[in-house]
Amino acid sequence: MQLNVGCTLQFDAQEATPVIFMLRPRSCSGQRIIAQEYEITPNVPVTEFTDRYGNLCQRLGAPVGPFTVRTAATVQADDAIDVAPGAPFVPVEDLPDDVLHFILPSRYCQSDQMNDLAARIVANIEIPGYDQVEAIRRWINQNVTYRYGVSNASTSATDTAEQRMGVCRDFTHLGIALCRNLNIPARMVVGYLHSLKPMDLHAWFEAYVDGRWYTFDATQTEPKGNRVTVAYGRDAADVAFTTQFGPMMLNQMEVWVRAGE
Amino acid sequence: MQLNVGCTLQFDAQEATPVIFMLRPRSCSGQRIIAQEYEITPNVPVTEFTDRYGNLCQRLGAPVGPFTVRTAATVQADDAIDVAPGAPFVPVEDLPDDVLHFILPSRYCQSDQMNDLAARIVANIEIPGYDQVEAIRRWINQNVTYRYGVSNASTSATDTAEQRMGVCRDFTHLGIALCRNLNIPARMVVGYLHSLKPMDLHAWFEAYVDGRWYTFDATQTEPKGNRVTVAYGRDAADVAFTTQFGPMMLNQMEVWVRAGE
Amino acid sequence: MQLNVGCTLQFDAQEATPVIFMLRPRSCSGQRIIAQEYEITPNVPVTEFTDRYGNLCQRLGAPVGPFTVRTAATVQADDAIDVAPGAPFVPVEDLPDDVLHFILPSRYCQSDQMNDLAARIVANIEIPGYDQVEAIRRWINQNVTYRYGVSNASTSATDTAEQRMGVCRDFTHLGIALCRNLNIPARMVVGYLHSLKPMDLHAWFEAYVDGRWYTFDATQTEPKGNRVTVAYGRDAADVAFTTQFGPMMLNQMEVWVRAGE
Amino acid sequence: MQLNVGCTLQFDAQEATPVIFMLRPRSCSGQRIIAQEYEITPNVPVTEFTDRYGNLCQRLGAPVGPFTVRTAATVQADDAIDVAPGAPFVPVEDLPDDVLHFILPSRYCQSDQMNDLAARIVANIEIPGYDQVEAIRRWINQNVTYRYGVSNASTSATDTAEQRMGVCRDFTHLGIALCRNLNIPARMVVGYLHSLKPMDLHAWFEAYVDGRWYTFDATQTEPKGNRVTVAYGRDAADVAFTTQFGPMMLNQMEVWVRAGE
Repeated sequence: MQLNVGCTLQFDAQEATPVIFMLRPRSCSGQRIIAQEYEITPNVPVTEFTDRYGNLCQRLGAPVGPFTVRTAATVQADDAIDVAPGAPFVPVEDLPDDVLHFILPSRYCQSDQMNDLAARIVANIEIPGYDQVEAIRRWINQNVTYRYGVSNASTSATDTAEQRMGVCRDFTHLGIALCRNLNIPARMVVGYLHSLKPMDLHAWFEAYVDGRWYTFDATQTEPKGNRVTVAYGRDAADVAFTTQFGPMMLNQMEVWVRAGE
Repeated sequence: MQLNVGCTLQFDAQEATPVIFMLRPRSCSGQRIIAQEYEITPNVPVTEFTDRYGNLCQRLGAPVGPFTVRTAATVQADDAIDVAPGAPFVPVEDLPDDVLHFILPSRYCQSDQMNDLAARIVANIEIPGYDQVEAIRRWINQNVTYRYGVSNASTSATDTAEQRMGVCRDFTHLGIALCRNLNIPARMVVGYLHSLKPMDLHAWFEAYVDGRWYTFDATQTEPKGNRVTVAYGRDAADVAFTTQFGPMMLNQMEVWVRAGE
Repeated sequence: MQLNVGCTLQFDAQEATPVIFMLRPRSCSGQRIIAQEYEITPNVPVTEFTDRYGNLCQRLGAPVGPFTVRTAATVQADDAIDVAPGAPFVPVEDLPDDVLHFILPSRYCQSDQMNDLAARIVANIEIPGYDQVEAIRRWINQNVTYRYGVSNASTSATDTAEQRMGVCRDFTHLGIALCRNLNIPARMVVGYLHSLKPMDLHAWFEAYVDGRWYTFDATQTEPKGNRVTVAYGRDAADVAFTTQFGPMMLNQMEVWVRAGE
Repeated sequence: MQLNVGCTLQFDAQEATPVIFMLRPRSCSGQRIIAQEYEITPNVPVTEFTDRYGNLCQRLGAPVGPFTVRTAATVQADDAIDVAPGAPFVPVEDLPDDVLHFILPSRYCQSDQMNDLAARIVANIEIPGYDQVEAIRRWINQNVTYRYGVSNASTSATDTAEQRMGVCRDFTHLGIALCRNLNIPARMVVGYLHSLKPMDLHAWFEAYVDGRWYTFDATQTEPKGNRVTVAYGRDAADVAFTTQFGPMMLNQMEVWVRAGE
């Protein structure tokens, strides 16, 4: 489906604040950028760089006072995500070198602390690989309650495993930590999802089985396509939409994902 | 100045033809992308990748028959290019590792064959560095005739040094080859130039002196800003707007660079 | 000083176990490899790759039974590390793109949770930058007790901040987390240190001030040179000497650092 | 076979001369470094960096007077190279992004000028791919005469196609240019070959068919293993053992490749 996606973020900075944004999607597997816009008001200088994962990052110094970023894109996205029951686990020794990175624990995904929970969730899965990840995804979907205000920027997978509440970011961290505990590479994706309710910037995860990355979203009951990836990385430390270095308030935020022609 | 740049390329492919395009500018030093569009007709699948120089490349299979690519961007560009008479040569031992690459000869810039000409052009330059590059640029501007139809995709710097005729691509290759002969790193840039006459996709070069890259354009008598870089690399083998692998005719081409609001 | 460094690790694997080693130093700032050896017994196939930080990693499948890795190098190392009291803090907006990565929190360095401690330690420091890092280093050296057996592979900076005990790895994680809390980029280094007592593989950290990386070692009372870097990264998740994916016991380990001719 | 390889290069520099060496093999597909040494006399500072192809490069300033580099390695090398008659051509649209680079023309491999010769050589080959490359390799082996002194650092594939004489470097450039003309990715490899006669540093090429790189050596009548790769790249501009920037004479050179235990 062709999607028109975008967001407007309105900040108020009490002092000049360096900021890194990750708000510009790029063409990649599953999506093609047809058009895009990126507007900042006031029009301060911005530089853009590509991080270690290929994400496009925008750096700027937000001035004192109100500050707005508006970004929009027209994207050709896949209508469905691939599902592959039975797709096999890739033994660690056969993982590509650059995928290895994604079985290591990271700031919010302490996979080294998930032995019991991971073992329990996949206890009855017969074929290691995709089915394990799907069991993890389903377990989170059924056992973690979606709730705003119970987690924050420091909440990690171990917190969520205990608390059993959180938002998309928390669901995702837990899913990733559980996969990595089973030596299944997993990475966080942030972006847009068509018909998400309520509409917001979203997060989900990908797991590497049978030689490729598959999409999983523990916040949804059914597999849903029409996603637009903005960035991916090990966890939220890598792929924050906004990383700010000073006191700057997000006063208002609007996100849209509309079907195009 | 804010610039609206873009081009439409209309091809006719006799058989299905793999193509690589380099037509999407990115934000970088001297320019910021505010909006952009990329449209292909018919709407075949496209993948995008980043090459070794960070350029955004689009791969697709052009189908049999007519095929159109239209790309446009709104870009905040610098009004002037920096000029720095007297800026010193960087001794080879002090060049950053990743700049070293750009003093080596390449397909169209046989810098190893330029000893006499390079020595002659800079014979009276007192301070090695920027002034040498500027002498090279001016020499080419004054001694090579701009003419269509005398060069082709195989024409290299040694050809142009002899023939003393060519187009922006040839001027650029010669400039690069002469700089590298003096151990000054130089690279090719392709993109848009405001008020170029006649309007076309353009090529120029950058040389590394005094710790940074400076812009030089041997086709122009005066230094001119309001440029939009689309890609850079060692020479035209790296930065062709179109690299096609089969018989496909470019039937029509339109290029525009307009001052924005 | 020319150093002969090396280690022998003897494992016993109960089942075939994929392993990633980071045991091969490379020439880099402050050290030059003159000779090196890398021996595994039994002689199973090994592949080597370079990770995202440029570290040389060896992948292999350890067979069932005893398994030994012996690695040695002759290295020209700097006798002293640079110290630079007063060297200034680099504002976030001026950090190189690829250094930004090292102010983000990571698995074992939850810099986002260090506000109070960091503020307290640097309360009396007048010049932000090197002096802050040195205050952190000294505070850890004086307030954290070096003790084996109180920490493990899951221990992180927040644990050590509370517990005030640990080994070089823990000292390092805490130092890094505190620096990053102040927006000073910091990274973990693992390697060899001449005259370390007791001799062992070692860990320390580097902080980025005044445009370059400086070495800090919170386990030592005085700045000491004659170090050999084997790998660096965000924290121990990136730079484990051994990352194993299965039950394999380290039965014996010998480490040596000897002054050469 | 386990091989002890190495070389000693003795130079005499009339003035201080920056030099880049590529003389340190690394573990990669087909070879594993067991031990290595790298000695320079006098012992000037050296820095090492990794180039765009992953090759290890050593930079130093050779002082006035005699200067010696001695490098040696013990390497586990494959006894045979893979041969794969019938292995199919990979259509350009299916080539991995980072392999595309190797079908473009380069300084010494003007593949755009090889239409007639390439077409002629493969005229009777039925299956595009490996068999075409082997036909090219064989044609060069049978039609180009191995002779010292007829080519130099500027000699390129078009020169050799005409002259029909040259050394391993020239054979290799011609092979690469012909492969690329057929849209088969090809790259230059420099290194050591066991039982080469007369012993010397050597060059050969690899071509990408059926999803992987295969080794071809136009200087040999039979496929021979026991090779040690030191570096690879587009052509000799990328992989010179020595790139010097000033007047420095190579007075003596010794190369050895001996079977180990």
